Amino acid sequence: MVDLALNNSKAHELAKSQREISIAEFFERNRHLLGFDNKRKALLTTIKEAVDNSLDACEEADILPEIIVEITEMGADRFRVAIEDNGPGIVKEQIPKIFAKLLYGSKFHKMKMQRGQQGIGISAAVMYSQLTTGKPARIISKIGAGHPALYYELKINTQTNNPEIISEHVKDWGKESGTRIEIDLEASYNKGRQSVDEYIRETAIINPHVTLIYQPPKGEQLMLVRVTEKKPVQPVEIKPHPYGVEMGMLIKMLQVTTAKTVKQFMKEDFSRVSDKVAEEILENAQVLSKTKPKNVTREMAERIIEGIRNTKIMMPPTDCIVPIGSELLERGLKKEINAEFYATVSRTPNVYRGNPFLVEASLAYGGDIPSEGGIEVMRFANKVPLLYQQGACAINESVCQTNWKSYGLQQSGSNLPQGPLVLVVHIASVWVPFTSEAKEAIAHYPEIIKEIKLAIQEVGRDLGRYVNKKKKVKDEMKKRSYIETYIPHISEALKDILALSDFAESDIKDNLSYLLEHTRGKLDNLEFNPEANTEYDENLARIGREEEERDE
Amino acid sequence: MVDLALNNSKAHELAKSQREISIAEFFERNRHLLGFDNKRKALLTTIKEAVDNSLDACEEADILPEIIVEITEMGADRFRVAIEDNGPGIVKEQIPKIFAKLLYGSKFHKMKMQRGQQGIGISAAVMYSQLTTGKPARIISKIGAGHPALYYELKINTQTNNPEIISEHVKDWGKESGTRIEIDLEASYNKGRQSVDEYIRETAIINPHVTLIYQPPKGEQLMLVRVTEKKPVQPVEIKPHPYGVEMGMLIKMLQVTTAKTVKQFMKEDFSRVSDKVAEEILENAQVLSKTKPKNVTREMAERIIEGIRNTKIMMPPTDCIVPIGSELLERGLKKEINAEFYATVSRTPNVYRGNPFLVEASLAYGGDIPSEGGIEVMRFANKVPLLYQQGACAINESVCQTNWKSYGLQQSGSNLPQGPLVLVVHIASVWVPFTSEAKEAIAHYPEIIKEIKLAIQEVGRDLGRYVNKKKKVKDEMKKRSYIETYIPHISEALKDILALSDFAESDIKDNLSYLLEHTRGKLDNLEFNPEANTEYDENLARIGREEEERDE
Repeated sequence: MVDLALNNSKAHELAKSQREISIAEFFERNRHLLGFDNKRKALLTTIKEAVDNSLDACEEADILPEIIVEITEMGADRFRVAIEDNGPGIVKEQIPKIFAKLLYGSKFHKMKMQRGQQGIGISAAVMYSQLTTGKPARIISKIGAGHPALYYELKINTQTNNPEIISEHVKDWGKESGTRIEIDLEASYNKGRQSVDEYIRETAIINPHVTLIYQPPKGEQLMLVRVTEKKPVQPVEIKPHPYGVEMGMLIKMLQVTTAKTVKQFMKEDFSRVSDKVAEEILENAQVLSKTKPKNVTREMAERIIEGIRNTKIMMPPTDCIVPIGSELLERGLKKEINAEFYATVSRTPNVYRGNPFLVEASLAYGGDIPSEGGIEVMRFANKVPLLYQQGACAINESVCQTNWKSYGLQQSGSNLPQGPLVLVVHIASVWVPFTSEAKEAIAHYPEIIKEIKLAIQEVGRDLGRYVNKKKKVKDEMKKRSYIETYIPHISEALKDILALSDFAESDIKDNLSYLLEHTRGKLDNLEFNPEANTEYDENLARIGREEEERDE
Repeated sequence: MVDLALNNSKAHELAKSQREISIAEFFERNRHLLGFDNKRKALLTTIKEAVDNSLDACEEADILPEIIVEITEMGADRFRVAIEDNGPGIVKEQIPKIFAKLLYGSKFHKMKMQRGQQGIGISAAVMYSQLTTGKPARIISKIGAGHPALYYELKINTQTNNPEIISEHVKDWGKESGTRIEIDLEASYNKGRQSVDEYIRETAIINPHVTLIYQPPKGEQLMLVRVTEKKPVQPVEIKPHPYGVEMGMLIKMLQVTTAKTVKQFMKEDFSRVSDKVAEEILENAQVLSKTKPKNVTREMAERIIEGIRNTKIMMPPTDCIVPIGSELLERGLKKEINAEFYATVSRTPNVYRGNPFLVEASLAYGGDIPSEGGIEVMRFANKVPLLYQQGACAINESVCQTNWKSYGLQQSGSNLPQGPLVLVVHIASVWVPFTSEAKEAIAHYPEIIKEIKLAIQEVGRDLGRYVNKKKKVKDEMKKRSYIETYIPHISEALKDILALSDFAESDIKDNLSYLLEHTRGKLDNLEFNPEANTEYDENLARIGREEEERDE
């Protein structure tokens, strides 16, 4: 029985080391999941999380945002960043938890479009700061003119995932309301792609109502002034749609509901369930309307899920997401990029797993955009620029799977197309499915990829029409210049042969030129008639229809 | 003062909806982070997490593992999976928490090589099961012959991240010890790439000491018998190495240490810190040896980090990681893949962020491997096959950045090379940095990428030598066959010209054949002398040196 004793003791021995892991410990070690893989990215992620929070707060409080971002170099690989907003401020009791507790916040449980959605970001930045420099984060917040400004120094106890208040007191602060966070961290600052500079630039493009005052560690302060004074429409919170609910979720909802009957539950806890729809679902499910939610068994719940599937229910309301809109999106792009052609589309909302979402796309072609190399793809989710993990992103996949040759660009296989093009894709949703907590790339849900492709195809066809026109004009001008080159020679030859006067020769020239114009049409017409229904346009339309059919 | 009142109320209003988010709720919604993106992957992830746990438990208890995996189709998109092992079993009190609480386990805090490291996997599978089918997971576990087998039905309360025991009782179970888990889930079963079949096959390759009994939903039971009875050497737990410690971690360690002085702390809480090394670090840091750990200020801690950087410390011990070894790795590969050439390397350990790790690589070339299309890359981390996210993995990047043309394969740009090749790369570490909780791809740490590249180059050079030999032999045989074709004709011509006898003609033939052999060397020599130091070998060696220098 040696073996038994051994096995026995082994299970008990193993049991001794089993214990709970704090979420803060977990992310402390897995910090690359939160976007703190390296020093360069750490700087960007910190600023991004703070700015996201500021913009969300301003929007919720209906304030035109004015955000200050400062980066100061403190030594080798050591930076101080400060982000200050004119938002509504944060009440005293919430400050420690918002900045120094992971998985805490107001956004996770709300079904509406917001930049933040996890309750992790800013606390992760505070944790990274303390991990690399040992210093607490400094916060000032003020909720209105008559209120004091509160100053906090905060750390996270990673073993318990709770805030540690190092210092707290009242401070003088000229601002009427707002929040400022200051963090020291190990980081590195670079310019160019995936830099903080790039993030600031793209944030301005996609948030035309925001003013950004940006002080990089070296060089002059940059002031990006808003292009519109109009605040974006506020998204409205919605309830879950029946089509998106799964067994486990339904059982959980049945347990916590305050509704008295399952019919009432269906009507009150879901969106788009009228009296009639509720009855139809329950009839399809063969569940009595008056059943108490707590008495619904697993088998009945399964039938309700079936019942939902067999009932036609209106798509969820879409005022929970607010697009930027074609006009503002294009204006933002024009402000930043000097191109010769622009096209923009803002599609109608669609649904994945019960979550409404919509896609907008905008492109700029030619002009100052370099024509060598792959096109530039700017990715945005709920108005936040995504700078990393392009290869892992559903937007990238959609771009690569589009046939850009038919829009006049070069493309080899399923790679990014080549040419002087900047493509902006924005996805807005009550819940953006990211591939990691760092929120850098969008997960590959088929419904989302399909919508992105359709948006790209819309602007792509506009582009194709333009590129084709441009090519036609170019070809025509080439032909004309050939003919024009020969007109004087022909006139002279005719003069010699027919022994005409100089006057008659110039007459012939004019006649020939007139003939040229008359038979080939005015160049102006070619250039300024984008509606002309040429054969090419018809081809494009056909390609578009085929693409859409293929995607069904 | 309307504005003030509005702001004020806004901050208070916002505060009302701020609350804690349970880690289970978080992952329930973000289930794609855990590998439950779609039905197909859900099946694989569930089985993978359970098998990982079984193998880890068997290894810790020094038991030769015999694992049963059963998949049963229960209806449309509905499967029942069962995973059963002959491991040490789990003690009563731990069963609910191990299977129905996220972030719970023994592996997170241990610095040694293990398959699991997060304390998330199997509970995530239980959560996915309950979310999609509403059913509890069923567990049986027995810790030894004299003990009862315990049966549990478990769910997770996702609002609190705590186990809910639906049912528990003693059960008859013939097994001496072991654990069986049965889960119902929404899933889909496919064959081919990224399938459960593929996972089972690769698990057998990389774990030659494991017997796997696999029952797919359709078709016959598959029995993969171990190729060795030798159990792998047990990895030894280590302490953190000073080179890997950061400010925040050091401060935390100083707070919880039981050491009386900072010198004692350095010696006892870190690996490779002798009396002398501890003194040197503290001298470099200008911190008194006798300082109490609790009296070390942030500034002193910062100096200690500096002090560590300026002190030469031996690399960490490497018995915390156990390679599979060249011989076993190659044997496993040979068992599964019928090729004409194999090469394997098991490199010595290296360190990233204070974590020891090592890389092994093995390749199979030609034979039954299809020669069309890209090579097949099999990725493994701590003996677990990685089937998804190849594009996002450091192993893939390393393969693509290697110049395979010099090893005789076709490759365009930085893409995967083409040819009849299967490449196995295994990374073993006390802490494998994955790009997500789903543990599908390895994060891009430069130290890791460098080691992977060096391993690939080693087997690549062997391959290059073989491919070149093969080409040479082929060329030579072609030449010989030309010459041989003409020998009879020349002999006949000579016979006619010189009026020789038939006997003399056959003599000439023999002489010519001898001459051919004599001047061109025996074909055998070419084929069976891999050590021959040809010009090509020298070139390869030079390329190898250059590659290594470039990587420095």
